[in-house]
Amino acid sequence: MIKRPLTKALILSLGFMAGSAAADQLLDRARSTFEPIPKYPPVIDGNELTQSKVELGKMLFFEPRLSSSHLISCNTCHNVGLGGDDYLPVSIGHGWQKGPRNSPTVFNAVFNAAQFWDGRAADLAEQAKGPVQAGVEMSSTPERVVSTLKSMPEYVERFGDAFPGQDDPVTFDNMAVAIEAFEATLITPDSEFDKYLRGNTAALNDKEKEGLALFMDRGCAACHSGVNLGGQEYYPFGLVERPGGAILPEGDRGRFEVTQTASDEYVFRASPLRNIELTAPYFHSGAVWSLEEAVAVMGTAQLGTELNDSEVQSIVAFLKTLTGNIPEIRYPIMPPSTATTPRPTDIVP
Amino acid sequence: MIKRPLTKALILSLGFMAGSAAADQLLDRARSTFEPIPKYPPVIDGNELTQSKVELGKMLFFEPRLSSSHLISCNTCHNVGLGGDDYLPVSIGHGWQKGPRNSPTVFNAVFNAAQFWDGRAADLAEQAKGPVQAGVEMSSTPERVVSTLKSMPEYVERFGDAFPGQDDPVTFDNMAVAIEAFEATLITPDSEFDKYLRGNTAALNDKEKEGLALFMDRGCAACHSGVNLGGQEYYPFGLVERPGGAILPEGDRGRFEVTQTASDEYVFRASPLRNIELTAPYFHSGAVWSLEEAVAVMGTAQLGTELNDSEVQSIVAFLKTLTGNIPEIRYPIMPPSTATTPRPTDIVP
Repeated sequence: MIKRPLTKALILSLGFMAGSAAADQLLDRARSTFEPIPKYPPVIDGNELTQSKVELGKMLFFEPRLSSSHLISCNTCHNVGLGGDDYLPVSIGHGWQKGPRNSPTVFNAVFNAAQFWDGRAADLAEQAKGPVQAGVEMSSTPERVVSTLKSMPEYVERFGDAFPGQDDPVTFDNMAVAIEAFEATLITPDSEFDKYLRGNTAALNDKEKEGLALFMDRGCAACHSGVNLGGQEYYPFGLVERPGGAILPEGDRGRFEVTQTASDEYVFRASPLRNIELTAPYFHSGAVWSLEEAVAVMGTAQLGTELNDSEVQSIVAFLKTLTGNIPEIRYPIMPPSTATTPRPTDIVP
Repeated sequence: MIKRPLTKALILSLGFMAGSAAADQLLDRARSTFEPIPKYPPVIDGNELTQSKVELGKMLFFEPRLSSSHLISCNTCHNVGLGGDDYLPVSIGHGWQKGPRNSPTVFNAVFNAAQFWDGRAADLAEQAKGPVQAGVEMSSTPERVVSTLKSMPEYVERFGDAFPGQDDPVTFDNMAVAIEAFEATLITPDSEFDKYLRGNTAALNDKEKEGLALFMDRGCAACHSGVNLGGQEYYPFGLVERPGGAILPEGDRGRFEVTQTASDEYVFRASPLRNIELTAPYFHSGAVWSLEEAVAVMGTAQLGTELNDSEVQSIVAFLKTLTGNIPEIRYPIMPPSTATTPRPTDIVP
């Protein structure tokens, strides 16, 4: 009588320990490769996230008068209600022109090592200056932006509050710094995967754990690691096998355009995978709408592996655990234009 | 000794009473002409403002996938952060096409007797169907909208909650009804003028009261009365003197396009004046950027009166007291597209 329960208990216990040990092993491996999104925005060197600066940055993020047409704001292509991007293959900008690449999500972008698909901006403040001036995006100029902001007394006051002690706080650079401060608050903590990383092993189901294991075993995590599962390093797209021209158009040579170095041809920043289920279509070309297809393409192009359907499904199930809590954003109320605010111009140069 | 203070008190008291009587007379006249914005959204016959319907309507209001390009939402042209419209002379829509008329504010639109500059929609639900289908605005179709919404399980569930007991709640009509429910909450109570109408005579200063008196004495209030100071009736633009073609383009014959009745040529709905300082440029043509100029044009065109500068300034000061509390709106989080969601098409037909 006394033995059976003991034996049973022992078997159960061993089984549990084995399962637990395997689970812990998976968790340990995951913890050595990935990091959870922190609960609070990170500290940015030289850009303290004061309330007045973050609030100003939010106004500027939603401010269509930063574009020369007065129609396009940061939020047009980085829509905070749509996963932080625009659900388009490539964005539509000034004059209905199409941009060259798929718009990356603004969520968690603060954790990327550099910004843009080719990493040509070191940080979000530098990034923010790009689209405002790009002819195919917002098509404005630093001078026009400063004139616009200085024409509205509320902005002048808010820049003063956000950048205290400066003689002339309303500058193009400070615009970008304020936008960076706001964007740094756009983080999505508490995904199921992050709960798992923090020790709640029940946060992932078996299929999702299988996907996580495959993601590490097959080599995905070699490029997609860290807090954003990507966004840190540059890699050639088509490392093993070049995908077709729809997915990897010949004309866009990626980081080569920045460095003019032959080894950077078709090199792109590994895409950050946080909230990936919310940010179709995929790749810098935005050519692939299905996450399953995107995973399969990565298998052949980057890893030289034909992932079978079940493996793809498991990896996709895992990737869907990367969806975190989307930040709550109160729509900012922007001040009215004044007699000196530059008028909108919708003419395409 | 005893007389002087009495006399002084009497004089003061008489003076106060005289001022008070004059003030009360102005207030009485104002109360017989205008009404304050109610503190809470109005009851709409046949469209109960349930929380699930208002929340769904908000998502739809911000939903760019109601446009065929997936770029344009109701909020693009009726921006809740920019006075409820877009600060453009005429809106820019699908394919960068320009609309024919200035976009009216969505704020307090629920109090208008009919919608659009020509009143061609009886209510906001009917109005909401127009821009979604207009080739120069969102360029979609009822069928495409229904396919889009049905492709996302969260929308199907939300339509079910918002329209309980219906067999097939995801319809184009219900889309419009939900948007109307949300828009009915976009009211701006507690302007200084409304405080005045409610009895706080100190809410307007002397110049603003002078402007209010002029607004009634000179005849502005004949067309701009009621809760929205306009939005109720149709009047010919250029009643006394036709303004130039920039302000009143010959090609746009207003309500005539709806009724095909000669007496409706160049007839437009009197513009509602709530929050008018936030909604430049002015008139259906959007040709006038300055509120002062708009008031002066109205004087000559509608009243046959050359208002002098001081009068214009007083009326403008009064009009600025019509700015109310802008509603706080939390940006909605929209569900991701699925494999069956129609893909964006940016082709201009």
